[in-house]
Amino acid sequence: MQRLQTEDLRNMEKLFRLRLINSLSGFKSANLVGTVDNKGNENLAIVSSVVHLGSNPALMGFVMRPAVVPRNTYQNILDTGFYTFNHIHIDFYKKAHQTSARYPIDISEFEQVGLAAEYLDGFPAPFVKESSIRMGLKFREKLDIQSNGTILMIGEIVELFIPKSCLSADGYLDIEKAGSLTVSGLDAYHSTNRIARLSYAKPEMEVTEIQV
Amino acid sequence: MQRLQTEDLRNMEKLFRLRLINSLSGFKSANLVGTVDNKGNENLAIVSSVVHLGSNPALMGFVMRPAVVPRNTYQNILDTGFYTFNHIHIDFYKKAHQTSARYPIDISEFEQVGLAAEYLDGFPAPFVKESSIRMGLKFREKLDIQSNGTILMIGEIVELFIPKSCLSADGYLDIEKAGSLTVSGLDAYHSTNRIARLSYAKPEMEVTEIQV
Repeated sequence: MQRLQTEDLRNMEKLFRLRLINSLSGFKSANLVGTVDNKGNENLAIVSSVVHLGSNPALMGFVMRPAVVPRNTYQNILDTGFYTFNHIHIDFYKKAHQTSARYPIDISEFEQVGLAAEYLDGFPAPFVKESSIRMGLKFREKLDIQSNGTILMIGEIVELFIPKSCLSADGYLDIEKAGSLTVSGLDAYHSTNRIARLSYAKPEMEVTEIQV
Repeated sequence: MQRLQTEDLRNMEKLFRLRLINSLSGFKSANLVGTVDNKGNENLAIVSSVVHLGSNPALMGFVMRPAVVPRNTYQNILDTGFYTFNHIHIDFYKKAHQTSARYPIDISEFEQVGLAAEYLDGFPAPFVKESSIRMGLKFREKLDIQSNGTILMIGEIVELFIPKSCLSADGYLDIEKAGSLTVSGLDAYHSTNRIARLSYAKPEMEVTEIQV
């Protein structure tokens, strides 16, 4: 077992620290954020920080650092009020990763990496055609994180497209069956094997496994 | 493909919606939060919302909803200023899940579920002995999410315990090798299979795989 403290972390080589600290939260969600600017220029960006905030209303958050690197995604969301989340699957994870390259502002990552932008039912932001779990979000709120200048972007799911075959009778969505991936650290992609679903826990009661 | 919109989500049966919306962000991190109150009563709670916020300082966030359900964890963090994150592994995931049962305030979830509280090098909050990736955090900031009354709790990693055998030469921590699990939805636990680590993406350049 290796022990590291504040000073060890602060004195670490920058990229080493970046890779290590990014590995510590645990496995992360893997999504592509689709946006468009007021002139119709499309943008697509990979994010691993999407987090569930609440179910009613259906709220999702994700973290941006626009002060450090100017981001089209950030400005597009503020300008248009809409964006999409699209799960990343094994058949296009390299293309998804490639969206993190720094393309000029008027260049569409969709075109550069070879993913198709799709507009569904009049929703103003582009979805990723290749993704089978897709959400259209309306921007709700942004929170400034004083400790390091990052921003938590919060939106409400107003459109949802999912495969019927992955939706269980009780509402659980089998994202493993849909082929969604998970990320560790800065750059590692993983598929998953479900061990079990567990019943709602109560004191003095053994949890049981739920059939999907 | 099934399409759902705001009204469909709002009119859904409550538990069905809870399971569905909790599945949508993608795969989640699986951690146990260890705290203690000013009288020495220990508390342990499973969370799937831990998210990386920054590397220097090393900041992690997680989401709580103390307005809906009073949480010992929340009050303990505010009272003592310290807490721990402990990765969940396959050999104790059922015990980890059981910590979500609503035990009385003076009951230790450590004792109830059969996990060992360990105090390391004078850090004031208890670690989970069975976990091989453990962080000691100092509370930094909390952000109120206006949209639904949840709170983003932000802390800095000031102590870190990791297995040397899982740390790559470039800083990547192999949390899959450490046996860390990932969560989907409210109640599903998954192990992982790494597909690849990918190189830093640049325009006009094909990404390559990085050997761990």
